[in-house]
Amino acid sequence: MSTRVAIIGAGPAGLLLSHLLGEAGIDSIVIDSRSRAEIEGTVRAGILEQGTVEVLASMGDASRVLTTGTRHDGVEFHFDGERHRIDFAALVGRSVWLYPQHEALKDLIAARLAAGQDLRFGVTAEGVEDASSDRPRVIATDADGAHFEIQAEFVVGADGSRSVARTAVTGSSTGGYFREYPFAWFGILTEAPPSAEELIYSNSPAGFALISQRSPQVQRMYFQCDPDADTNAMTDAEIWATLQERVPGTELAEGPIFQRDVLRFRSFVAHELRRGRVALVGDAAHTVPPTGAKGMNLAVADVLILNRALRALLLERDERLLDGYAETALRRIWKAQHFSWWMTSMLHTAPGASDFDHRRQLGELRSVVESEAGSAYLAEAYTGWPLEAGV
Amino acid sequence: MSTRVAIIGAGPAGLLLSHLLGEAGIDSIVIDSRSRAEIEGTVRAGILEQGTVEVLASMGDASRVLTTGTRHDGVEFHFDGERHRIDFAALVGRSVWLYPQHEALKDLIAARLAAGQDLRFGVTAEGVEDASSDRPRVIATDADGAHFEIQAEFVVGADGSRSVARTAVTGSSTGGYFREYPFAWFGILTEAPPSAEELIYSNSPAGFALISQRSPQVQRMYFQCDPDADTNAMTDAEIWATLQERVPGTELAEGPIFQRDVLRFRSFVAHELRRGRVALVGDAAHTVPPTGAKGMNLAVADVLILNRALRALLLERDERLLDGYAETALRRIWKAQHFSWWMTSMLHTAPGASDFDHRRQLGELRSVVESEAGSAYLAEAYTGWPLEAGV
Repeated sequence: MSTRVAIIGAGPAGLLLSHLLGEAGIDSIVIDSRSRAEIEGTVRAGILEQGTVEVLASMGDASRVLTTGTRHDGVEFHFDGERHRIDFAALVGRSVWLYPQHEALKDLIAARLAAGQDLRFGVTAEGVEDASSDRPRVIATDADGAHFEIQAEFVVGADGSRSVARTAVTGSSTGGYFREYPFAWFGILTEAPPSAEELIYSNSPAGFALISQRSPQVQRMYFQCDPDADTNAMTDAEIWATLQERVPGTELAEGPIFQRDVLRFRSFVAHELRRGRVALVGDAAHTVPPTGAKGMNLAVADVLILNRALRALLLERDERLLDGYAETALRRIWKAQHFSWWMTSMLHTAPGASDFDHRRQLGELRSVVESEAGSAYLAEAYTGWPLEAGV
Repeated sequence: MSTRVAIIGAGPAGLLLSHLLGEAGIDSIVIDSRSRAEIEGTVRAGILEQGTVEVLASMGDASRVLTTGTRHDGVEFHFDGERHRIDFAALVGRSVWLYPQHEALKDLIAARLAAGQDLRFGVTAEGVEDASSDRPRVIATDADGAHFEIQAEFVVGADGSRSVARTAVTGSSTGGYFREYPFAWFGILTEAPPSAEELIYSNSPAGFALISQRSPQVQRMYFQCDPDADTNAMTDAEIWATLQERVPGTELAEGPIFQRDVLRFRSFVAHELRRGRVALVGDAAHTVPPTGAKGMNLAVADVLILNRALRALLLERDERLLDGYAETALRRIWKAQHFSWWMTSMLHTAPGASDFDHRRQLGELRSVVESEAGSAYLAEAYTGWPLEAGV
């Protein structure tokens, strides 16, 4: 089988790229090893940058981001017994939206199928061949175990942190810049009303907590934990007590906890983002710790840059934008890596941190919230640097 | 002998406090174990915040800061082959001044002596007694080895990082929050014309360097080195080659090197800043690594706060400002500790830093220089947070 662009991975990056290419009349095939139900049922990130929302909203009625999503004009920082709001709208005239990733995926899948798109679930990519030729190929296995190939003019690895396409680009499945953090998030989903209107990031003496939302009925909360924490080792009451201790002065609305998970904190950037006719986008290219909510947003930024480059390549035979893809994308990626590291290091308690470190951290938080420039610097990163220039 | 305020240490903090108290008609005695020539001959910090300059300039003709000092409206950041200027004046409407500390000390000493001030060199404080009484005492030894006491209504420890007064306040000579860095600065003084009009902070692949100035004839330059570096282990030619490699694209004007020193990087904040009728200011209260040029400026900020508190205590018998001294001073101190740590960690190469760390650092530098808010956040800290509110 053949197509113009073969896309491995039906996550936000792969599906959005297929949509944008389709708008320019460029056919693509998207494959994913997971089932549609699995993709649409996994609760993941929830905060979208303003630029990400604008891209999704450009799909018109096909996206429910503006009708179902909730605009957040700020976040709260709690530390040292104080509560401060970072007012994004007032500081930088931009906002973020709470719109869970799986809801965005439902929109994108429905839109691709409605457009008659070749979208295949349960199909596993085994590898990518001939990256350096004009006809790269994806070797795949369908749900019945049958092998087949997709020939294309370009292959995109949008296949997440365990990317199969990465080997064809970097020469190894792991080749990249890497950092691991000595802590993780214990996350819960609870059936309860919201405890706050906006996200609360709390640096408390007992450790970090993040109070966030998913919908009027379902809330998402996290607290800093050991990376090897056992999700079954705590009772619901112990979890609520842990969370409550970390947001003193805020009364949490409790409810049944129906999901528990541990999110490890890793930073990763692949050594290469493109080789010949194969490129990586999203988690296949980079991983960030979740504190800055940059994961999905960075994937969308990659896709916008690659979309322009592929239109130039496939419609005008102009390779210049493609040749600049990695450099252009990496400028934003490393800024986002920094921002994610910054939010993480400013808000969490590192194992072995000294009293000096903790007080320095409070000095940093105070410097940011007391300074309009400092707050604006954080707000423009959180709401997302402009995407207009393709970056 | 007795006085209203006994001040240990004739550095910028002690002398300025004596001057400000004198303006309010409050007598003080200042003692220092060093000779006048030693104090006036030691080249130390050179960058003054705008607020520090305004305080010195309020001495009128007694200070040469506005006539001999040089206003700097910005600094340069060099990294990743790029050069960026942080334009303080445009960003925050404030500047810094290059005015070496020993020149400020010459002004202050001359002014105090002209005012008939009791200023004693070669007098070593041995300890402070009766901190909790209304008549604290300084036990001292004069240049001839004779012991004597100074009785006062208040004692101020402005006696630097090896403070004798600290024990009377914190209960030990070392009690404080502490951090040591695994690198240092190799500093030189050279007889040469300036290599640049403003300071250049360079994060280069070979390591950090800072190109700064002292006067039209004398320049001060630093490069990151091992804390145990031997100042005699390098030839002049090797020093120039090391510096030059770290500021690619900038041609250094070389000259004879007449001083070499190693500045260790330490952060320290005393556990207590005041007990009863004894308070600490300046380096006796805190040490910062030199990257953010905050040392002398933070001492001046302490002095302004303590000056107001002592005027209230001694002229109006009002202890409320004194009771708030530590808390008020510490808010600025921890912000300055953070800023000094931030500048240090953003610009230096930590031993054992990974490729990820280095690229994250470049992402941070790019985030700051590309963002007006980020640049302004840095500029307002570098030029100094407002002192008006006594902070």
